Amino acid sequence: MSIYPNTLKELILRFSKLPGIGKKTAERLSIYILNSSNEETVEFSNALVNLKDSISTCKICNCFTEDECHICNNENRVKDLLCIVKDPTDVFLIEKSGFKGLYHVLGGLISPFDGITPEKLNIDMLSMRLKSIREVIIGIEPSHDGDITTIYLSDIIKKEDIKVSRLARGVPVGTSLEFIDEVTLSHSINDRVEI
Amino acid sequence: MSIYPNTLKELILRFSKLPGIGKKTAERLSIYILNSSNEETVEFSNALVNLKDSISTCKICNCFTEDECHICNNENRVKDLLCIVKDPTDVFLIEKSGFKGLYHVLGGLISPFDGITPEKLNIDMLSMRLKSIREVIIGIEPSHDGDITTIYLSDIIKKEDIKVSRLARGVPVGTSLEFIDEVTLSHSINDRVEI
Repeated sequence: MSIYPNTLKELILRFSKLPGIGKKTAERLSIYILNSSNEETVEFSNALVNLKDSISTCKICNCFTEDECHICNNENRVKDLLCIVKDPTDVFLIEKSGFKGLYHVLGGLISPFDGITPEKLNIDMLSMRLKSIREVIIGIEPSHDGDITTIYLSDIIKKEDIKVSRLARGVPVGTSLEFIDEVTLSHSINDRVEI
Repeated sequence: MSIYPNTLKELILRFSKLPGIGKKTAERLSIYILNSSNEETVEFSNALVNLKDSISTCKICNCFTEDECHICNNENRVKDLLCIVKDPTDVFLIEKSGFKGLYHVLGGLISPFDGITPEKLNIDMLSMRLKSIREVIIGIEPSHDGDITTIYLSDIIKKEDIKVSRLARGVPVGTSLEFIDEVTLSHSINDRVEI
Protein backbone atom coordinates (compact mmCIF):
# COMPACT_ATOMS: atom_id res chain seq x y z
CA MET A 1 0.00 0.00 0.00
CA SER A 2 1.32 3.44 -0.90
CA ILE A 3 1.95 5.88 1.91
CA TYR A 4 -0.06 8.64 0.19
CA PRO A 5 -3.84 8.93 -0.19
CA ASN A 6 -4.88 8.31 -3.82
CA THR A 7 -5.78 11.88 -4.73
CA LEU A 8 -2.46 13.12 -3.34
CA LYS A 9 -0.65 10.45 -5.34
CA GLU A 10 -2.47 11.62 -8.46
CA LEU A 11 -1.41 15.25 -7.96
CA ILE A 12 2.20 14.21 -7.28
CA LEU A 13 2.12 12.31 -10.58
CA ARG A 14 0.82 15.39 -12.42
CA PHE A 15 3.46 17.68 -10.95
CA SER A 16 6.28 15.22 -11.64
CA LYS A 17 5.39 15.23 -15.35
CA LEU A 18 6.39 18.91 -15.55
CA PRO A 19 9.91 19.64 -16.83
CA GLY A 20 12.57 19.91 -14.13
CA ILE A 21 10.21 18.72 -11.39
CA GLY A 22 11.46 15.51 -9.76
CA LYS A 23 9.50 13.22 -7.46
CA LYS A 24 10.68 14.96 -4.28
CA THR A 25 9.71 18.41 -5.53
CA ALA A 26 6.37 17.06 -6.80
CA GLU A 27 5.69 15.71 -3.31
CA ARG A 28 6.62 19.04 -1.72
CA LEU A 29 4.42 21.03 -4.12
CA SER A 30 1.46 18.66 -3.71
CA ILE A 31 1.65 18.83 0.07
CA TYR A 32 1.85 22.63 -0.18
CA ILE A 33 -1.39 22.55 -2.21
CA LEU A 34 -2.90 20.26 0.43
CA ASN A 35 -2.11 22.88 3.08
CA SER A 36 -3.24 25.90 1.04
CA SER A 37 -6.75 27.34 0.97
CA ASN A 38 -9.57 25.90 -1.14
CA GLU A 39 -9.95 29.21 -2.99
CA GLU A 40 -6.31 29.33 -4.04
CA THR A 41 -6.48 25.75 -5.31
CA VAL A 42 -9.64 26.38 -7.32
CA GLU A 43 -8.03 29.47 -8.86
CA PHE A 44 -4.94 27.44 -9.79
CA SER A 45 -7.13 24.72 -11.29
CA ASN A 46 -9.12 27.29 -13.28
CA ALA A 47 -5.95 29.02 -14.50
CA LEU A 48 -4.81 25.75 -16.07
CA VAL A 49 -8.04 25.12 -17.97
CA ASN A 50 -8.58 28.77 -18.94
CA LEU A 51 -5.14 28.92 -20.51
CA LYS A 52 -5.88 26.03 -22.85
CA ASP A 53 -9.35 27.34 -23.67
CA SER A 54 -8.31 30.86 -24.58
CA ILE A 55 -4.91 30.54 -26.25
CA SER A 56 -4.60 29.88 -29.97
CA THR A 57 -1.89 30.32 -32.61
CA CYS A 58 -1.61 33.50 -34.72
CA LYS A 59 -2.17 32.64 -38.39
CA ILE A 60 0.50 35.13 -39.44
CA CYS A 61 3.43 34.79 -37.02
CA ASN A 62 2.57 31.36 -35.51
CA CYS A 63 3.05 32.65 -31.94
CA PHE A 64 0.59 32.03 -29.10
CA THR A 65 -2.20 34.59 -28.92
CA GLU A 66 -5.55 35.41 -27.29
CA ASP A 67 -8.33 36.77 -29.58
CA GLU A 68 -6.00 38.62 -31.97
CA CYS A 69 -2.18 38.72 -32.02
CA HIS A 70 -1.09 41.78 -30.03
CA ILE A 71 2.21 41.92 -31.93
CA CYS A 72 1.07 41.46 -35.56
CA ASN A 73 -1.90 43.81 -34.98
CA ASN A 74 0.02 46.48 -33.08
CA GLU A 75 0.31 49.62 -35.27
CA ASN A 76 3.34 50.82 -33.28
CA ARG A 77 5.58 47.89 -34.26
CA VAL A 78 8.23 48.27 -36.98
CA LYS A 79 6.41 46.41 -39.74
CA ASP A 80 9.35 45.81 -42.10
CA LEU A 81 11.71 44.32 -39.49
CA LEU A 82 11.26 40.58 -38.86
CA CYS A 83 12.84 38.32 -36.26
CA ILE A 84 12.71 34.57 -36.98
CA VAL A 85 12.66 32.32 -33.93
CA LYS A 86 12.26 28.63 -33.16
CA ASP A 87 9.50 28.62 -30.51
CA PRO A 88 6.80 30.95 -29.16
CA THR A 89 8.82 31.01 -25.93
CA ASP A 90 11.64 32.74 -27.80
CA VAL A 91 9.23 35.53 -28.74
CA PHE A 92 8.62 36.19 -25.05
CA LEU A 93 12.37 36.22 -24.38
CA ILE A 94 13.24 38.61 -27.23
CA GLU A 95 10.29 40.87 -26.33
CA LYS A 96 12.00 41.40 -22.96
CA SER A 97 15.07 42.79 -24.77
CA GLY A 98 12.95 45.64 -26.18
CA PHE A 99 12.82 44.45 -29.83
CA LYS A 100 10.12 46.41 -31.69
CA GLY A 101 9.75 44.55 -35.00
CA LEU A 102 7.56 41.58 -35.94
CA TYR A 103 8.19 37.86 -35.36
CA HIS A 104 8.00 34.65 -37.31
CA VAL A 105 7.88 31.40 -35.30
CA LEU A 106 9.25 28.34 -37.15
CA GLY A 107 7.91 25.76 -34.71
CA GLY A 108 11.22 23.87 -34.64
CA LEU A 109 14.62 23.59 -36.31
CA ILE A 110 15.72 21.71 -39.41
CA SER A 111 17.21 18.47 -38.09
CA PRO A 112 18.42 15.85 -40.60
CA PHE A 113 19.04 13.33 -37.79
CA ASP A 114 15.49 13.66 -36.42
CA GLY A 115 13.92 13.75 -39.89
CA ILE A 116 12.72 17.35 -39.52
CA THR A 117 12.85 18.77 -43.04
CA PRO A 118 12.10 22.41 -43.99
CA GLU A 119 8.64 21.31 -45.20
CA LYS A 120 7.68 20.39 -41.65
CA LEU A 121 8.39 23.92 -40.41
CA ASN A 122 6.46 27.15 -40.88
CA ILE A 123 8.64 28.31 -43.79
CA ASP A 124 6.03 28.60 -46.63
CA MET A 125 4.29 31.37 -44.72
CA LEU A 126 7.69 33.05 -44.17
CA SER A 127 8.32 33.25 -47.93
CA MET A 128 4.98 35.02 -48.38
CA ARG A 129 5.70 37.51 -45.59
CA LEU A 130 9.15 38.45 -46.92
CA LYS A 131 7.58 40.67 -49.65
CA SER A 132 6.89 43.44 -47.15
CA ILE A 133 10.11 43.05 -45.13
CA ARG A 134 13.22 45.26 -45.26
CA GLU A 135 15.44 43.43 -42.74
CA VAL A 136 15.45 39.98 -41.12
CA ILE A 137 17.19 38.98 -37.88
CA ILE A 138 17.55 35.22 -37.42
CA GLY A 139 17.15 34.74 -33.66
CA ILE A 140 18.07 31.06 -33.51
CA GLU A 141 20.35 29.40 -30.94
CA PRO A 142 23.96 28.54 -31.91
CA SER A 143 23.79 24.74 -32.19
CA HIS A 144 24.13 22.06 -34.87
CA ASP A 145 20.47 22.20 -35.96
CA GLY A 146 20.33 25.94 -35.27
CA ASP A 147 23.22 26.62 -37.63
CA ILE A 148 21.75 24.42 -40.40
CA THR A 149 18.43 26.25 -40.10
CA THR A 150 20.11 29.68 -40.06
CA ILE A 151 22.07 28.91 -43.26
CA TYR A 152 18.95 27.51 -44.99
CA LEU A 153 16.87 30.56 -44.10
CA SER A 154 19.55 33.11 -44.96
CA ASP A 155 19.80 31.59 -48.47
CA ILE A 156 16.04 32.06 -49.00
CA ILE A 157 16.09 35.60 -47.61
CA LYS A 158 19.15 36.77 -49.57
CA LYS A 159 17.44 35.71 -52.82
CA GLU A 160 14.76 38.32 -52.05
CA ASP A 161 17.48 40.98 -51.69
CA ILE A 162 16.67 41.52 -48.03
CA LYS A 163 19.26 42.41 -45.38
CA VAL A 164 19.74 39.41 -43.07
CA SER A 165 21.69 38.98 -39.84
CA ARG A 166 21.98 36.59 -36.91
CA LEU A 167 22.34 37.28 -33.17
CA ALA A 168 25.88 38.08 -32.00
CA ARG A 169 27.67 35.25 -30.19
CA GLY A 170 29.80 36.30 -27.28
CA VAL A 171 30.34 36.86 -23.61
CA PRO A 172 27.12 37.14 -21.55
CA VAL A 173 26.86 40.39 -19.59
CA GLY A 174 28.01 39.97 -15.98
CA THR A 175 30.14 36.90 -16.74
CA SER A 176 33.86 36.77 -16.12
CA LEU A 177 35.95 35.66 -19.15
CA GLU A 178 37.41 32.74 -17.19
CA PHE A 179 33.99 31.03 -17.21
CA ILE A 180 33.53 31.23 -20.99
CA ASP A 181 34.32 28.25 -23.22
CA GLU A 182 36.83 28.77 -26.00
CA VAL A 183 34.30 28.36 -28.83
CA THR A 184 32.15 31.19 -27.45
CA LEU A 185 35.27 33.30 -26.87
CA SER A 186 36.40 32.74 -30.44
CA HIS A 187 32.91 33.79 -31.64
CA SER A 188 33.07 36.90 -29.46
CA ILE A 189 36.32 37.88 -31.21
CA ASN A 190 34.85 37.27 -34.69
CA ASP A 191 31.71 39.25 -33.79
CA ARG A 192 33.75 42.07 -32.20
CA VAL A 193 32.29 45.57 -32.32
CA GLU A 194 34.33 48.72 -33.08
CA ILE A 195 34.10 51.36 -30.35
CA MET B 1 1.60 46.06 -22.13
CA SER B 2 2.87 42.75 -20.77
CA ILE B 3 4.52 40.38 -23.22
CA TYR B 4 2.31 37.46 -22.12
CA PRO B 5 -1.37 36.85 -22.94
CA ASN B 6 -3.52 37.36 -19.80
CA THR B 7 -4.38 33.72 -19.17
CA LEU B 8 -0.71 32.78 -19.45
CA LYS B 9 0.18 35.58 -17.01
CA GLU B 10 -2.42 34.23 -14.58
CA LEU B 11 -0.97 30.70 -14.67
CA ILE B 12 2.58 32.04 -14.23
CA LEU B 13 1.33 33.88 -11.13
CA ARG B 14 -0.23 30.69 -9.74
CA PHE B 15 2.92 28.63 -10.29
CA SER B 16 5.17 31.31 -8.80
CA LYS B 17 3.18 31.18 -5.54
CA LEU B 18 4.36 27.60 -4.99
CA PRO B 19 7.36 27.12 -2.67
CA GLY B 20 10.74 27.12 -4.42
CA ILE B 21 9.25 28.14 -7.78
CA GLY B 22 10.69 31.45 -8.99
CA LYS B 23 9.34 33.61 -11.83
CA LYS B 24 11.59 32.00 -14.46
CA THR B 25 10.56 28.46 -13.52
CA ALA B 26 6.90 29.53 -13.35
CA GLU B 27 7.23 30.86 -16.92
CA ARG B 28 8.86 27.64 -18.09
CA LEU B 29 6.21 25.44 -16.45
CA SER B 30 3.33 27.56 -17.79
CA ILE B 31 4.70 27.45 -21.31
CA TYR B 32 5.10 23.69 -20.97
CA ILE B 33 1.41 23.48 -20.03
CA LEU B 34 0.61 25.65 -23.05
CA ASN B 35 2.39 23.13 -25.28
CA SER B 36 0.92 20.02 -23.65
CA SER B 37 -2.32 18.31 -24.66
CA ASN B 38 -5.76 19.51 -23.54
CA GLU B 39 -6.44 16.17 -21.85
CA GLU B 40 -3.30 16.32 -19.73
CA THR B 41 -4.14 19.85 -18.63
CA VAL B 42 -7.70 18.96 -17.68
CA GLU B 43 -6.41 15.98 -15.69
CA PHE B 44 -3.92 18.23 -13.87
CA SER B 45 -6.68 20.75 -13.15
CA ASN B 46 -8.99 18.00 -11.83
CA ALA B 47 -6.22 16.50 -9.68
CA LEU B 48 -5.88 19.84 -7.88
CA VAL B 49 -9.57 20.18 -7.08
CA ASN B 50 -10.10 16.49 -6.28
CA LEU B 51 -7.32 16.58 -3.73
CA LYS B 52 -8.98 19.38 -1.76
CA ASP B 53 -12.41 17.77 -2.04
CA SER B 54 -11.43 14.32 -0.81
CA ILE B 55 -8.74 14.88 1.82
CA SER B 56 -9.66 15.47 5.46
CA THR B 57 -7.84 15.18 8.80
CA CYS B 58 -7.94 12.00 10.90
CA LYS B 59 -9.67 12.70 14.23
CA ILE B 60 -7.24 10.41 16.06
CA CYS B 61 -3.76 11.04 14.64
CA ASN B 62 -4.41 14.43 12.94
CA CYS B 63 -2.75 13.27 9.69
CA PHE B 64 -4.28 13.76 6.23
CA THR B 65 -6.67 11.01 5.20
CA GLU B 66 -9.28 9.95 2.64
CA ASP B 67 -12.50 8.35 4.00
CA GLU B 68 -10.85 6.61 6.97
CA CYS B 69 -7.25 6.80 8.18
CA HIS B 70 -5.34 3.89 6.63
CA ILE B 71 -2.78 3.96 9.45
CA CYS B 72 -5.02 4.24 12.56
CA ASN B 73 -7.45 1.68 11.10
CA ASN B 74 -4.83 -0.79 9.90
CA GLU B 75 -4.95 -3.93 12.04
CA ASN B 76 -1.37 -4.84 11.09
CA ARG B 77 0.22 -1.77 12.71
CA VAL B 78 1.93 -1.99 16.11
CA LYS B 79 -0.81 -0.35 18.18
CA ASP B 80 1.21 0.42 21.33
CA LEU B 81 4.14 2.17 19.58
CA LEU B 82 3.57 5.86 18.83
CA CYS B 83 5.69 8.30 16.82
CA ILE B 84 5.01 11.99 17.47
CA VAL B 85 5.71 14.32 14.51
CA LYS B 86 5.27 17.99 13.67
CA ASP B 87 3.44 17.84 10.31
CA PRO B 88 1.50 15.32 8.19
CA THR B 89 4.42 15.51 5.74
CA ASP B 90 6.66 13.97 8.40
CA VAL B 91 4.33 10.96 8.56
CA PHE B 92 4.92 10.33 4.86
CA LEU B 93 8.70 10.62 5.38
CA ILE B 94 8.85 8.26 8.37
CA GLU B 95 6.52 5.77 6.60
CA LYS B 96 9.22 5.47 3.92
CA SER B 97 11.68 4.30 6.59
CA GLY B 98 9.49 1.27 7.29
CA PHE B 99 8.15 2.34 10.73
CA LYS B 100 5.18 0.13 11.66
CA GLY B 101 3.68 1.89 14.69
CA LEU B 102 1.05 4.65 14.91
CA TYR B 103 1.52 8.40 14.55
CA HIS B 104 0.46 11.54 16.33
CA VAL B 105 0.69 14.82 14.37
CA LEU B 106 1.16 17.92 16.55
CA GLY B 107 0.40 20.45 13.81
CA GLY B 108 3.42 22.61 14.74
CA LEU B 109 6.10 23.11 17.38
CA ILE B 110 6.01 25.01 20.66
CA SER B 111 7.55 28.40 19.86
CA PRO B 112 7.70 31.05 22.61
CA PHE B 113 8.93 33.67 20.11
CA ASP B 114 6.02 33.08 17.72
CA GLY B 115 3.47 32.78 20.52
CA ILE B 116 2.77 29.10 19.84
CA THR B 117 1.95 27.62 23.23
CA PRO B 118 1.27 23.92 23.90
CA GLU B 119 -2.49 24.70 24.01
CA LYS B 120 -2.39 25.63 20.32
CA LEU B 121 -1.04 22.19 19.37
CA ASN B 122 -2.73 18.79 19.25
CA ILE B 123 -1.45 17.76 22.71
CA ASP B 124 -4.77 17.18 24.59
CA MET B 125 -5.61 14.32 22.25
CA LEU B 126 -2.08 12.94 22.77
CA SER B 127 -2.61 12.69 26.53
CA MET B 128 -5.76 10.66 25.93
CA ARG B 129 -4.01 8.30 23.51
CA LEU B 130 -1.07 7.61 25.85
CA LYS B 131 -3.19 5.21 27.97
CA SER B 132 -2.85 2.46 25.38
CA ILE B 133 0.78 3.17 24.44
CA ARG B 134 3.88 1.24 25.51
CA GLU B 135 6.60 3.28 23.80
CA VAL B 136 6.80 6.75 22.25
CA ILE B 137 9.36 7.96 19.70
CA ILE B 138 9.52 11.75 19.37
CA GLY B 139 10.26 12.29 15.67
CA ILE B 140 10.84 16.03 15.79
CA GLU B 141 13.65 17.92 14.05
CA PRO B 142 16.69 19.05 16.07
CA SER B 143 16.12 22.82 16.26
CA HIS B 144 15.39 25.46 18.92
CA ASP B 145 11.62 24.99 18.82
CA GLY B 146 12.01 21.29 18.14
CA ASP B 147 14.09 20.79 21.28
CA ILE B 148 11.66 22.80 23.46
CA THR B 149 8.76 20.68 22.16
CA THR B 150 10.67 17.42 22.64
CA ILE B 151 11.49 18.27 26.28
CA TYR B 152 7.89 19.38 26.97
CA LEU B 153 6.45 16.18 25.50
CA SER B 154 8.94 13.83 27.15
CA ASP B 155 7.96 15.30 30.57
CA ILE B 156 4.30 14.50 29.92
CA ILE B 157 5.07 11.02 28.64
CA LYS B 158 7.47 10.06 31.44
CA LYS B 159 4.77 10.89 34.00
CA GLU B 160 2.69 8.09 32.47
CA ASP B 161 5.62 5.68 32.95
CA ILE B 162 5.99 5.16 29.21
CA LYS B 163 9.34 4.55 27.49
CA VAL B 164 10.22 7.62 25.41
CA SER B 165 13.03 8.28 22.94
CA ARG B 166 13.99 10.78 20.25
CA LEU B 167 15.53 10.20 16.80
CA ALA B 168 19.32 9.74 16.77
CA ARG B 169 21.33 12.73 15.59
CA GLY B 170 24.32 11.91 13.48
CA VAL B 171 26.03 11.50 10.15
CA PRO B 172 23.64 10.99 7.20
CA VAL B 173 24.28 7.78 5.27
CA GLY B 174 26.46 8.38 2.21
CA THR B 175 27.95 11.60 3.57
CA SER B 176 31.66 12.06 4.14
CA LEU B 177 32.60 13.27 7.65
CA GLU B 178 34.31 16.34 6.22
CA PHE B 179 30.93 17.75 5.18
CA ILE B 180 29.34 17.45 8.63
CA ASP B 181 29.14 20.44 10.98
CA GLU B 182 30.73 20.07 14.42
CA VAL B 183 27.40 20.21 16.31
CA THR B 184 26.05 17.23 14.36
CA LEU B 185 29.38 15.42 14.77
CA SER B 186 29.29 15.99 18.52
CA HIS B 187 25.72 14.61 18.58
CA SER B 188 26.80 11.57 16.59
CA ILE B 189 29.44 10.86 19.27
CA ASN B 190 26.91 11.26 22.11
CA ASP B 191 24.42 9.02 20.30
CA ARG B 192 27.09 6.42 19.46
CA VAL B 193 25.97 2.83 19.15
CA GLU B 194 27.94 -0.14 20.52
CA ILE B 195 28.83 -2.76 17.91
